[in-house]
Parts: sequence; C-alpha cells; structure tokens
Amino acid sequence: MIFRQLFDRDTCTYTYLLADEATREAVLIDPVRELVERDVGLLGELGLKLMATIETHMHADHVTGAWGLKQATGCDIVYPAASKLDADRLVGAGDTIAFGQHALEVRPTPGHTATCTSYLVDDMVFTGDALFIRGCGRTDFQGGSAETLYASVWEQLLSLPDATRVFPGHDYKGRTMTTVAEEKAHNPRLGAGKTVEQFAAIMDALGLPYPRYIDQALPGNRRLGRPAHSETGWWSKLPRSEAGARRIGLDFVKQAPGGVRMIDVREPHETAEGHVAGAELIPLGTLPQQAPGWNRDDAIVTICRSAGRSDRAALHLESMGFTKVASMSGGMLGWS
Amino acid sequence: MIFRQLFDRDTCTYTYLLADEATREAVLIDPVRELVERDVGLLGELGLKLMATIETHMHADHVTGAWGLKQATGCDIVYPAASKLDADRLVGAGDTIAFGQHALEVRPTPGHTATCTSYLVDDMVFTGDALFIRGCGRTDFQGGSAETLYASVWEQLLSLPDATRVFPGHDYKGRTMTTVAEEKAHNPRLGAGKTVEQFAAIMDALGLPYPRYIDQALPGNRRLGRPAHSETGWWSKLPRSEAGARRIGLDFVKQAPGGVRMIDVREPHETAEGHVAGAELIPLGTLPQQAPGWNRDDAIVTICRSAGRSDRAALHLESMGFTKVASMSGGMLGWS
Repeated sequence: MIFRQLFDRDTCTYTYLLADEATREAVLIDPVRELVERDVGLLGELGLKLMATIETHMHADHVTGAWGLKQATGCDIVYPAASKLDADRLVGAGDTIAFGQHALEVRPTPGHTATCTSYLVDDMVFTGDALFIRGCGRTDFQGGSAETLYASVWEQLLSLPDATRVFPGHDYKGRTMTTVAEEKAHNPRLGAGKTVEQFAAIMDALGLPYPRYIDQALPGNRRLGRPAHSETGWWSKLPRSEAGARRIGLDFVKQAPGGVRMIDVREPHETAEGHVAGAELIPLGTLPQQAPGWNRDDAIVTICRSAGRSDRAALHLESMGFTKVASMSGGMLGWS
Repeated sequence: MIFRQLFDRDTCTYTYLLADEATREAVLIDPVRELVERDVGLLGELGLKLMATIETHMHADHVTGAWGLKQATGCDIVYPAASKLDADRLVGAGDTIAFGQHALEVRPTPGHTATCTSYLVDDMVFTGDALFIRGCGRTDFQGGSAETLYASVWEQLLSLPDATRVFPGHDYKGRTMTTVAEEKAHNPRLGAGKTVEQFAAIMDALGLPYPRYIDQALPGNRRLGRPAHSETGWWSKLPRSEAGARRIGLDFVKQAPGGVRMIDVREPHETAEGHVAGAELIPLGTLPQQAPGWNRDDAIVTICRSAGRSDRAALHLESMGFTKVASMSGGMLGWS
C-alpha cells in the first residue's frame, strides 16, 4: 500500500493519502481546503486516481478540501452517516470503503462530536479527533460527551492489537504517530489507568477558549467545502508569494466563489500573441488610472507572463482596498 | 526497528528517532533545542536509551538539541567530520553508527554546506538539506556549491534503489517523505532530466533572502547547542502556556544560561510544607510590591503548586520588562 502523511501547519491537521500500488486507486482522509492544490499535485505525480475523500467528522478548525478535490478529480465525497450531510456516500458501523485490493473499515467513535468516526486498515487506524497522541479532542460542543468518548476510545480503538499504529487528526507538538500500546500506557487523559469518572473530570476542567475558526469552518464544512459566494475568506486564505501577493492556481480559478474578472496586465505586443478568453487587457502601467473606478467587491485574478507583474498588480489592488484579488500562479507560462 | 518522525513547526525541521526494539538503544537525527523536553519525554515513555544525537550538518535555521539531550541522557554527540567541531565523535565516509542490531551508514553529501552528510539504514535515507521533497537546500553560503550538491545527490542518494524512502531535513508544505524514484522523476531542480548546468542556473537565480536565524543559529551550533551565558534568546524561545506565560521544564532549569533566581509564589502555609532549596518565598500577592526593585536582567523561574499562579507571576514580571523569566512546568506537583 502507498501511504503518505500530510500536514497543515496552520491548523496542525493531518491528511492521509492511502492508495493501492497495483490499481493506483487512492483515498484521502481529512483533506484541507487550502492544501487541495498540493494534494492534487501529489496524486498526479504518483499516478494515482482519487476515488474518495473521507472525513473523520465535521471539523470546527478547518474547512475540508472535499469539494475542491471533487472538482479537480471527480472523486466521491464520503462523510459519517451521523453528519446527515448531502455527501456522495454516508458511512456507518460495519461499512467498508474500498481502494483497489484494500478497504477501510468504518468505526464510529463519537464523543468529541456526535459524528466522529475512525477508519481501520491493516495495522493502521485513523482516529480523527477521538484519540490524539497523549490526548483527545475536546468534548464540550457539537454533541460532544466525555462519557461517550471514553467508551468509543476503549471499545473501538484501544481494544485493537497493541502494535496497531494510531494516526490522529491533529498533533500540536510535531509528533506524527503513536500505537495502541503507547496510548493505553501513557495517554494522560484516557490511558494510564484513568476511569471514566477521572476522564470526565479532566475534560470538565479544561476550560478551553471558543475555537478560533469555528464560525468560518462549520458553515464551510456543511457545504462540503464548497465556497459561499459571499466568502471573501476564501480569498484571504490563498497563499502569498515571496513578493507578498496572494496566488491562485489555475485549477482554483474555476472554484472561486462568484464571477471572477481576469485582468491581463501584459503589454499589448504580448497579449496580441494570445490571451485567456474573456480576460480584460490592462497593461500594468495603466492599472493605476483604471482601477479606481472598479467595485472593490469585484473578485479579480491578475495574469502576466510568469506571475511577476501580476503579483505587483495584485498588491496594488489590495492596497486600494480590493479584498478578493490574487495573482495567477505560473502566469501564461503555466496556462499553456 | 522503532521509527518516529518528529517536526518543529517553527522552522519546519524534521527530527528522526530510530531505535532497536530488542536492546532499546536509540539515536536521534537532527534534534531541535527548543524541543528537547518533548524528545526526552518520548524516549522515557518508549523505554529507550539514547546512544547518540547525530547531525546532518551545522544548521543555519535552528540550534541543535544535542547538548540538552546529552545533559538529560548522557548520550554522545555525533557530527560530520568536516564540521571539525569538538563533538564526542566525528564521522566520515564509510563509518557506521550502531544502535542495537542496526547501524546507520555515513554518506557525506556536501553541496548545501561543506559538512552535509546523509545517513542510510535499511530502505531509509536521511538526507538533511542535501535533498528535499521536490527541492534541495540552498547552495549560496557556508561552503555551498551547486555543482558539488548535484554530484552528491546523484552519486550518494539517487543512486540508491528506487523504492528507498527519503526523509528530508525540512519540508515547508506539510509533506513527510518521498522516494528515490519520485525525486528522480519529479524533483524540479535535480531530477526530471535536469543537467548539472541547468541545476546550477536554477540555484544561481534563486536570490533567497539572508537566513533569518543564521546569526543566532551558527554560534549556538558551534557550541553543540550549549546556551551562551549572555543569551536572552534562550529564554525567548521557551514555549508559552495557554495563559501566555513562558514555561520551563524541570530538566531545563539547570540548563538555563547563568544563575537563575527561583521565586516560589505560593502562600506561607504551603511553602511551610516544603519548597525548592534556595527558592525565594514571595507570595503572588506581594510580588507587585517586591519586583520593582529587582534587576530586569535577572533570570527568574517562578514556581507554585501546579503552574497556574506561577504563570500569572511570570506574565506580571514580563509586563514589567523582565526578559529572562519563565514559569516552571508542572509546579511543585512536577518537582516531587
């Protein structure tokens, strides 16, 4: 089996890529919306066909990459049945999710939230926020319950063979995996002899702050990761180039919420040789004269030959108060 | 073999733990000074004896955890011979570093810097900054050379079997590993048919900024990670608690540069039952009256029962302009 662990530094979320070496069929567990381009690139380089995105739960700290990956690859979007979302497939206890000769076994593990589900294949279990390395997800919102989580973890996860490798949904200290034996011995909340009463008391006393992304994440995840038309947040999450401009990949232009204006800032002798259909031809030098009349709410992608001038154009527009603006990665060189 | 990949989110550095399951002998490749406490904790929980810290090169972006780990575990500090540092052992081409029944083969791979060295065991190679996932270390300082790096990578790394798993010193996009086959096909600088001339031209054109930590990192690494007495930077790198106070672990109090004042902020009826030898007994409520007369350059560790009040004390002192102050993790509960 092909296996890759991937990380989102911003929210400390782990995404897992699993694939069959022979058939090249792949699944992604818990992809992150801002990293879809990375994941699509890796799938392509490894020659894999994405069959499904699979969620361990409806996340409160990041938006799933499910919708973006479906646009890019045609994969199914799989969610735990308890989420009741309009996914391509809803899975529950005893279901399996196949990729080539392999299959993930679905194990509902509610407690962090009511929808939390773990997935088991061979000696690897993907536990989402039910079981972390020396910790676990909080139990104080979205239908969470310490008693339910304790039962889930002990009945569905720590009952697996000692050598089972545990891959969590997050780690905040740079650790990548653990084992069932380790968590039974050293998990300070759930293992090391803790009773359900002790666990509930620990969780009760945590007093955690309100999750910082929840108000953005939950609506985005209810849409399976599809951006809302009004979402300027979608733009604000795009990565920035070394020059400081937001960058948007070719695959993403079509995912941008609402209509997008394409502004080609090359010189007339360059655009004469070809440009993107529908692009407005506005050489960089004339932008300062033209842009002041535009609606600051317009969504704008700037384009040039190799993203140097389009970065400068995007930065100029941002400095004027445009909030939904990005420079196209790779420029026309990438387009052709 | 026991294997763990560990990550430093601040500098995107990977640390690797390798150990023999039978003898429990372990080595750590490229540990990070700020994460020594994490690594010592993991060694203890897994029941491992650290034989050596091993460096792939003298790092410019972080300070090694070698010295701290040696203080905590008595391990040897191993460096590439080309570094000419005063390490416990210097290794060169053909040397091996044993841990139990396993041994790392030493493969010098200069080019990013003159000291860069990779380490091979079974089907795993640890490449430091010589070979990254779809990239490589810069070649414009510390004796770097694009031509040398190209030769190193092709002769020592990409000549390994296709299925060899490559574990780099850094990744900035959340990827954790790659393979020789993948880098030969998809590394945009060194693979995909690139000649040494093309590679040199790419590296020449990078125009990277001066490394942000180099002026702190190189002197620290020349001391094998031992803090300088004057280093307020040592304090500024300590992690912060959820309350916002810098936290220092018990093992680290003795590593702090220079003399440290221990301030026990518990009430008299608590300190009467026992306190750390030499600690000054200053109940939290009286701190605002006493601290104004203290030297702002004093290094101070605050202590209470469980680190709640000591966090508040440390924050109060920081707000007064003290720069070398931290709250003791775990408090007296951890001490005893």
